[in-house]
Amino acid sequence: MVAQLPAGETVSALGINVDKEKTHVIEITRREVGVKDVRVQIQYCGICHSDLHFLRQEWGSTKLPAVPGHEIVGIVTNIGSEVSKYKIGDTVGVGCFVDSCRTCDYCSQDSVPYCKEGATATYGSDINDTVGHTLGGYSEAIVVDESFVLSIPKNLDYAAVAPLLCAGITVWSPMKHYGVKAGSHVAILGLGGLGHMAVKLAVALGAKVTVLSRSSGRIEDAYRLGASNVVITSDKEAFAAAANTVDFIIDTVSADHDVNSLTNLLKPDGTIILLGASPSLTISPFSLIMKRIKLGGSLVGGIKETQELLDFCGKHNITSDIELVGVEKIEKAFERILKSDVKFRFVLDIAGTLNKNVIVE
Amino acid sequence: MVAQLPAGETVSALGINVDKEKTHVIEITRREVGVKDVRVQIQYCGICHSDLHFLRQEWGSTKLPAVPGHEIVGIVTNIGSEVSKYKIGDTVGVGCFVDSCRTCDYCSQDSVPYCKEGATATYGSDINDTVGHTLGGYSEAIVVDESFVLSIPKNLDYAAVAPLLCAGITVWSPMKHYGVKAGSHVAILGLGGLGHMAVKLAVALGAKVTVLSRSSGRIEDAYRLGASNVVITSDKEAFAAAANTVDFIIDTVSADHDVNSLTNLLKPDGTIILLGASPSLTISPFSLIMKRIKLGGSLVGGIKETQELLDFCGKHNITSDIELVGVEKIEKAFERILKSDVKFRFVLDIAGTLNKNVIVE
Repeated sequence: MVAQLPAGETVSALGINVDKEKTHVIEITRREVGVKDVRVQIQYCGICHSDLHFLRQEWGSTKLPAVPGHEIVGIVTNIGSEVSKYKIGDTVGVGCFVDSCRTCDYCSQDSVPYCKEGATATYGSDINDTVGHTLGGYSEAIVVDESFVLSIPKNLDYAAVAPLLCAGITVWSPMKHYGVKAGSHVAILGLGGLGHMAVKLAVALGAKVTVLSRSSGRIEDAYRLGASNVVITSDKEAFAAAANTVDFIIDTVSADHDVNSLTNLLKPDGTIILLGASPSLTISPFSLIMKRIKLGGSLVGGIKETQELLDFCGKHNITSDIELVGVEKIEKAFERILKSDVKFRFVLDIAGTLNKNVIVE
Repeated sequence: MVAQLPAGETVSALGINVDKEKTHVIEITRREVGVKDVRVQIQYCGICHSDLHFLRQEWGSTKLPAVPGHEIVGIVTNIGSEVSKYKIGDTVGVGCFVDSCRTCDYCSQDSVPYCKEGATATYGSDINDTVGHTLGGYSEAIVVDESFVLSIPKNLDYAAVAPLLCAGITVWSPMKHYGVKAGSHVAILGLGGLGHMAVKLAVALGAKVTVLSRSSGRIEDAYRLGASNVVITSDKEAFAAAANTVDFIIDTVSADHDVNSLTNLLKPDGTIILLGASPSLTISPFSLIMKRIKLGGSLVGGIKETQELLDFCGKHNITSDIELVGVEKIEKAFERILKSDVKFRFVLDIAGTLNKNVIVE
């Protein structure tokens, strides 16, 4: 058995100690900084819909104490003796994974999310420390092996970078994997945290972007983000006019919706990239067969490709559109996320607002 | 307007002149042999399930007279003055298409089935001749532009080659397109006309093949065809044992069935190739997302890749397992196809049995 990682320090975090209670400030233990570890003093942490599912036990039983957060940006304060990539004072990021087997076919191709042994998620995964499972970025500090730490381009707004580490890579990875490139026509369904990043990234890649929307409420945003066209899905005429013109549809909607009609928009050899885990999806095989259409899922991304994304965003000056909130607003932010009332991602101001005495509203 | 292609000869065919009548021998007109045309005296024509859908008007209204058949093998009897690929006496094949625009992005990449203008199917497509639409291979002879004529390897049994021209290429094309190769683990669902070809071709490509079957009735056949494993889909233990081991599932089933549970068998980055046009299919996006699984359709194949398939079959001595029947048995063959009572494809002995006086049983 591997020796248990020794406990290091106690830090404040935002989480729960008891099932079904309101998120509040709790104390957690971080491991001692190991030889390959980096200690990150967290400045910002994005709020992902997954955090809400996790705290509300909607993905099965959540281990307690539970601290979510996997869109982490902070400053390196301590490093282990064998750390070579980072030095004290660097601004770094931590995304959805903090470890994996590092040797399987998937890990060796940077397909970390599909690690044969199961990658270690930044929160909620079993780990051999005093707590027994990982605790996320809604906390003052985190200790992570340098191999899973990302470098943040200096020209970007650090708070607005945080969502790149989950929302950003979740759309970037499949765009690269399924072949979005300059000249592609990409349609994006759902203009939320993922969708708005998909618009920005696809445009920066040189693709033509059409936003597909159920309502006219986000037309202005779509154009501002860089879309060259907006199709209201209930507008039969506009939908028909766009038939057979699209190479990729990035479907970020997690509620039940009609995926089958989307195939009309695709050219032969088109691809629907499914990112929203709607409960189930009904499709006519005939649509897929007649135009050799692919429907493919994708889960977050690897470490190298997250760094590639961050570097690309640095070069193209891309960040997320965010609303920065204090940790006392966490429950209010969750409520607004459930109503899709955010443009387009909440980020917690950890360094500025998290301390022992905060009372969540 | 393009000048109408001049009428050439009258030949006997197996088809219908009136909606809902029984298939019988009718007379049809073939066009005159043009400068680029090849006249093929048909020896054999495979019976495809599509032929049945077509004659029974199950794919919308069928133009009359209607003659199906797109698995054609015959002998060249006449050639146009500019024909360079074939000479009189050659044994040749004609598959699912007899023309296309030949210039669009898809045609220029040999993706003929996805031609922007719509490829001209061997039967039922509009064409500018005296009949006005194409008439298939259930007939004495056919006249086809040499670009859509295939060369048949001399070492193969010509009757058993016929199904390669639809059933064969329908599984070959997606195997190549989606990346089946030596060392792949391919699972094949449905051991019928398509499925049995998929087993033979995947094995010849060097893949490991597992046959997925609802019943134990075809276990022996599966092993004889080259499968190294058979999993009865209702056997929960065997199904669980095969979880996360498969790279490609070739799903040839056209009846409603559970596609979602198949994802359990796939490794991350696995692909379900959908060939059976079941009415609709329900799948959990979660399954596709967690393992980055693709679900992709495919329709027949191009001309160059059909020739590639035929050459591969010549080299590996692969043909279809067939039951050769006289044209008088056509309705009986249709009935047996509906009961999946054929191992594994019917082929009509056109040259041996088709004449004016045949009475269909």
